[in-house]
Amino acid sequence: MTQSTLYPSATLLISCPDQQGLVAKIANFIYANGGNIIHADQHRDEASGLFLSRIEWSLGGFNLPKELIGPAFNAIAQPLGADWQLCFSDAIPRIAIWVSRQDHCLLDLLWRHQAKEFAAAIPLIMSNHATLKPIAEQFGIDFHHVPISRDTKAEQEAQQLALLEQYNIDLVVLAKYMQILSGDFLEKFPQVINIHHSFLPAFMGAQPYHRAHERGVKIIGATAHYVTEDLDAGPIIEQDVVRITHRDDVKDLIRKGKDLERIVLARGVRLHLQNRVLVYGNRTVVFA
Amino acid sequence: MTQSTLYPSATLLISCPDQQGLVAKIANFIYANGGNIIHADQHRDEASGLFLSRIEWSLGGFNLPKELIGPAFNAIAQPLGADWQLCFSDAIPRIAIWVSRQDHCLLDLLWRHQAKEFAAAIPLIMSNHATLKPIAEQFGIDFHHVPISRDTKAEQEAQQLALLEQYNIDLVVLAKYMQILSGDFLEKFPQVINIHHSFLPAFMGAQPYHRAHERGVKIIGATAHYVTEDLDAGPIIEQDVVRITHRDDVKDLIRKGKDLERIVLARGVRLHLQNRVLVYGNRTVVFA
Amino acid sequence: MTQSTLYPSATLLISCPDQQGLVAKIANFIYANGGNIIHADQHRDEASGLFLSRIEWSLGGFNLPKELIGPAFNAIAQPLGADWQLCFSDAIPRIAIWVSRQDHCLLDLLWRHQAKEFAAAIPLIMSNHATLKPIAEQFGIDFHHVPISRDTKAEQEAQQLALLEQYNIDLVVLAKYMQILSGDFLEKFPQVINIHHSFLPAFMGAQPYHRAHERGVKIIGATAHYVTEDLDAGPIIEQDVVRITHRDDVKDLIRKGKDLERIVLARGVRLHLQNRVLVYGNRTVVFA
Amino acid sequence: MTQSTLYPSATLLISCPDQQGLVAKIANFIYANGGNIIHADQHRDEASGLFLSRIEWSLGGFNLPKELIGPAFNAIAQPLGADWQLCFSDAIPRIAIWVSRQDHCLLDLLWRHQAKEFAAAIPLIMSNHATLKPIAEQFGIDFHHVPISRDTKAEQEAQQLALLEQYNIDLVVLAKYMQILSGDFLEKFPQVINIHHSFLPAFMGAQPYHRAHERGVKIIGATAHYVTEDLDAGPIIEQDVVRITHRDDVKDLIRKGKDLERIVLARGVRLHLQNRVLVYGNRTVVFA
Repeated sequence: MTQSTLYPSATLLISCPDQQGLVAKIANFIYANGGNIIHADQHRDEASGLFLSRIEWSLGGFNLPKELIGPAFNAIAQPLGADWQLCFSDAIPRIAIWVSRQDHCLLDLLWRHQAKEFAAAIPLIMSNHATLKPIAEQFGIDFHHVPISRDTKAEQEAQQLALLEQYNIDLVVLAKYMQILSGDFLEKFPQVINIHHSFLPAFMGAQPYHRAHERGVKIIGATAHYVTEDLDAGPIIEQDVVRITHRDDVKDLIRKGKDLERIVLARGVRLHLQNRVLVYGNRTVVFA
Repeated sequence: MTQSTLYPSATLLISCPDQQGLVAKIANFIYANGGNIIHADQHRDEASGLFLSRIEWSLGGFNLPKELIGPAFNAIAQPLGADWQLCFSDAIPRIAIWVSRQDHCLLDLLWRHQAKEFAAAIPLIMSNHATLKPIAEQFGIDFHHVPISRDTKAEQEAQQLALLEQYNIDLVVLAKYMQILSGDFLEKFPQVINIHHSFLPAFMGAQPYHRAHERGVKIIGATAHYVTEDLDAGPIIEQDVVRITHRDDVKDLIRKGKDLERIVLARGVRLHLQNRVLVYGNRTVVFA
Repeated sequence: MTQSTLYPSATLLISCPDQQGLVAKIANFIYANGGNIIHADQHRDEASGLFLSRIEWSLGGFNLPKELIGPAFNAIAQPLGADWQLCFSDAIPRIAIWVSRQDHCLLDLLWRHQAKEFAAAIPLIMSNHATLKPIAEQFGIDFHHVPISRDTKAEQEAQQLALLEQYNIDLVVLAKYMQILSGDFLEKFPQVINIHHSFLPAFMGAQPYHRAHERGVKIIGATAHYVTEDLDAGPIIEQDVVRITHRDDVKDLIRKGKDLERIVLARGVRLHLQNRVLVYGNRTVVFA
Repeated sequence: MTQSTLYPSATLLISCPDQQGLVAKIANFIYANGGNIIHADQHRDEASGLFLSRIEWSLGGFNLPKELIGPAFNAIAQPLGADWQLCFSDAIPRIAIWVSRQDHCLLDLLWRHQAKEFAAAIPLIMSNHATLKPIAEQFGIDFHHVPISRDTKAEQEAQQLALLEQYNIDLVVLAKYMQILSGDFLEKFPQVINIHHSFLPAFMGAQPYHRAHERGVKIIGATAHYVTEDLDAGPIIEQDVVRITHRDDVKDLIRKGKDLERIVLARGVRLHLQNRVLVYGNRTVVFA
C-alpha cells in the first residue's frame, strides 16, 4: 500500500457507536493541526451499529508533537464513546517468534524481515525444542529453549512472560509453535498471532492435514488469526487456499500447505504491523 | 476434455486390490477386441492398497456388441476381485432436479442443458413448493409439487420414489432442495448429488452463510457431493471458494455464494455424467 | 456492501490534486448539512499526486434538496480543482445490452436483474443479429436488430445512437457484442462496458481462446473494461481467471470461459452501477 | 503424488502418432518383465493426432536390469514411431541455479532442497554478479561469478557451458537470472527452466510489473517455462496469479510477485524433476 515515505505518519484505529459527524470531527482534528491524510477508510457494521475507521496522516508539518496527539484526540474521542489506538510509522514494534520443530514459517519470516517487508525488530526466538537454534544463530537472534510439560506449564509460561518483558516484546508470532497458551497467559500478553494449517473453522485442533485427507476435500487452506483462550477460534486476519487432488497424499498436503502457511502468516503479520487490522468482538476489519 | 466424437465410446470405472498386470489385462481386453483407447488414467491409493482406474475407448471398429462387453469383461474382472461399472457415451442419463424456492441453480442447470453442456435428459423437476413451477413450464419440463412435512415424510418419499421410477430417472440433483433425505430413501435411490453452500466440512447443516459471517471468515465456499445418510458428510466431488471482506454482510455472502453454487454444482454434475467420478469409501477419485 | 436501506443515499466520486484538508472539507460539507456518512474511502495516487475518493451518505435528515447538493458542493470543489460526480441511490440507471449471437452473458445479466442484483432498468437489447430476439421477448424487453456492415457502419452507428437517445440510456453493456465501436460513436456515448474473453492485455483482439490454446497457457481469464477507441485497451474494472490443463481443447476453453465471462461482466456492471468505479487516465480505482 | 518408496521406479515419457494397442503394448512390456505400474496417464492431442503418455512402474522384482530396459523398449517403440525417454527415480539430476542480484527464488529453491522437496543435487550456482556469493557459501555450494557484457557474450557462454560440463549438470534453473541465452547456447544445452514475472503472454520482456501497473490490471501472475531462443515464448510448465488493487504500487507488485515467482518456479522445477512434463511442439503435457 502506497505511503509517502519522507515523513513518518500517524495512524488512528477507531471504533465507536455510529453517529453523525464522526468523519468530520476526526478529519477536522487532523486538518486543524496541519496534518495531511494519506489513507482514510471506514466501515459501518450494521449488526452492531459500530463505526470502524482507520485514518493515517503524514506528520510532516503537523503542529502537535507525538506525545500530545493522544491526549488531544482523547478530548474528541471520549464524548463519542470511542475505543481508539494511535500508532506511528517510525515506531518499530518488537516481535518474538515462537516455534517448535518446523522451520519453514520461521525461515520465511526471517527472510522477509531481511528483505525489509516488515517494519519491525525480531530480537527473540523462543521454542519448546532446541531444533531450530542454528537458524536463530545464523540470523544473529537470541534463542531461548523453554521446554513445555503439562505439569509445569504455569512456571514455564511465567518464564516466557519474563522473557517477553525482558526483550520488551510487542507481538508474539506463533510460527508453528504447536502448543496451547493458557487464558492466564493471554490476559497478561494478548497480542499473539497464530497460523493454523486449515481453512478455519474446518479442522480446528490437531492434525488438520490428516483429517482433510480423510474427508477427501478438494481444497486445503491456512488461517492467520489472533489467539484467544478458545483453541483456533480467535479473530481471523487472513486466509488462503490451494487445490489438491486424489493424487495428493498426506505428505503432499503437508508440502503444499507449507507454502500456504508461509504466505498467509506473513500477510497476517504485515497487516498487523501496518495497523490495518481492527478487532471488534470476534471479528476483524482489515483495512487493506 | 477431448473426445473423438465420430463414434460412441465405452468407459470402464474400476477399483480393485492392486496387483501386477492390471493395466495390461484391461488394455489387452480392449486391444484384442479392436478398441482404441481415448483416455486412460489410474490411481493407486496407498492407504487402502486399491488400484482405481478409468479407461475410455472408441467403439468404432470394436468387435463386441455393447451388450456383450460387460459379460466379457466380467470374466477378467472377477479373478481380480474388481468392482467395476461400464458406461456408454451415447447412453443419455435421465436427471430429476429437485428444488425448493431458490431458482439460481435450477436456471443455471437448465441453461447449461440448453447449451449442450450436459449429455443428459431432464424430464422431471420436483419441489416441496410450487414457487418454481413457471420455470419448469417455460422450459417444457414436467413439474411435480410434493409438499414435505415431518409427520408424513415416509409417504412423501414413497411418492417421490414412484415419480423417479415413473420417469425412469438415473440421477437426482438437489439444486438447493434444502430437505434431508432419509437413509431409507437413499438405500432405494442412492444416486443423488447435492450442492452445499459452504466449504465443507466447515458450516455443515443450516445457515452456513450466517455462520460464516458470524465467524468472520475471509473466504466462503461451496461443495458438490454425493448425498449419504449423514448430513453434508458424503463423498465430495468438487469445491470452490471466493474471497469476501468485512464489507460483505450476509446478503452479500448469499449473492456471491450463488455464483459459487451454480458453478460448483454444474461441474460436479458434468463430471458425474462423464463418468469421471469413482467413489471409494467416503472419498472420490475425479479423473478430470 | 452494507447499505442502510431506509433512506436513499448520495455518493460523491471525486478526484483532484492532493492537498491538505480535503477529507475535512468534504466531510464538513456533509456534516454541516445534517448528513451521516455510510461509506468513505480514499486513495492517493503517488505517480499523479491525485487524491481520489468516494463518499456516500444517507439522505435521511439531510438539509439540502437533491437538486441543490451539486451546486452547493461545487462551491467547495472548484477551488480544489476537483473533478466530481454526484449520484443518488434511488436514481435508476437505464441499461442497453448489446449482443451478437451468444446468449450466456445476456441471460446471466437478465437473471441477475430479475434477482435484483442490479439497481437499474434494462429497457433495450440491441444486436447485429436476430438470433437472441426470443430471449428479449421472453423477458419483455424491446429488441432492435441493427445489422452491421463495414461500408454502412456510420449510418448504423447513427441509428444506434438514436435508439440510445430514444430509450434514454445511461450505460451500454456489450455482452459479447463482438463489434468494434468507432471513436466517433464513443465521443457521443462514452459509457460502455465490454467483456473481453482473455486476461488482458494477453490475447487482445480476435479468438483469444484459440490463441490461448495454441500458446499452451495453464490459466485463462476474462476482463471487464470500459470501451475506448483502442481495441481492448480501455480502463479495466475487473478480471478473473480459471485453471485449464492439456486435456482442455478449445471447446473446453470456450465452455469454461463462459462462466468467467458471466461473472466478471456482472461484477463490473454491478460495481459501475454502485458508483464504485472512478476512472483516471487509463486506470480505475475500484472502491469495493 | 503418491509413490511406493521401497524400490526405485522407472518412468517412460512417450509421444507417438495415435494408433490402436499402444497402451496394451507398453503395459505388456512392463507386465511381461514383472513390473507393477504405479502411475499411468495418457493424453490424445486431437490437433496433432499424437498419443502422449507417462507410465511409471516399480523396479522391485522387475526382470530387466536398468541398462537393458531402454534397448528392450526401443524394439517396441521404433515400429510405433515413438519419441520416448526413460528415467529412474533413484537417478539424482544435477541442477545449476543461475541468478543475478535478487535472492528470493534462490533462497526458496535452496530451502526446498534442504527440506527434501527436490530429488536432485545442486552443486553449482552461477551469476553475472557477485552479490549472492554469501548465500552459496552459507549452503556450501560452489559459486561462479561470470560477468556478462554484450561484446564478449560468446566467450562468456563458452565459459558457462564449460562449467555445466565440469559439474556434470542436467538442468539449469534461471532463478531471476535476467539475461538472455543465445540460440547457440540453447542448442548445446537445451534443458533450461526460467521464471518470468508475468502471466505470459502478457508483459513479455522487461519490467512486467511496471507495465502491469501502468495498464491497471487487477491480477498479476508468474510463469515457469522452458527457455527457447524466442524470449519468454517457450513451452509453459506452470502459471499462477494473485489479486492486486489500486492501492498496490509497483513496489507492492514486486513484493507480491516475489511470492508467486518462488512458488511457481518451485512447482515447475519439481514437476520437471518428477518427469511429469512432456514437451511437444511449443506446448507441454503436465501429468500432475
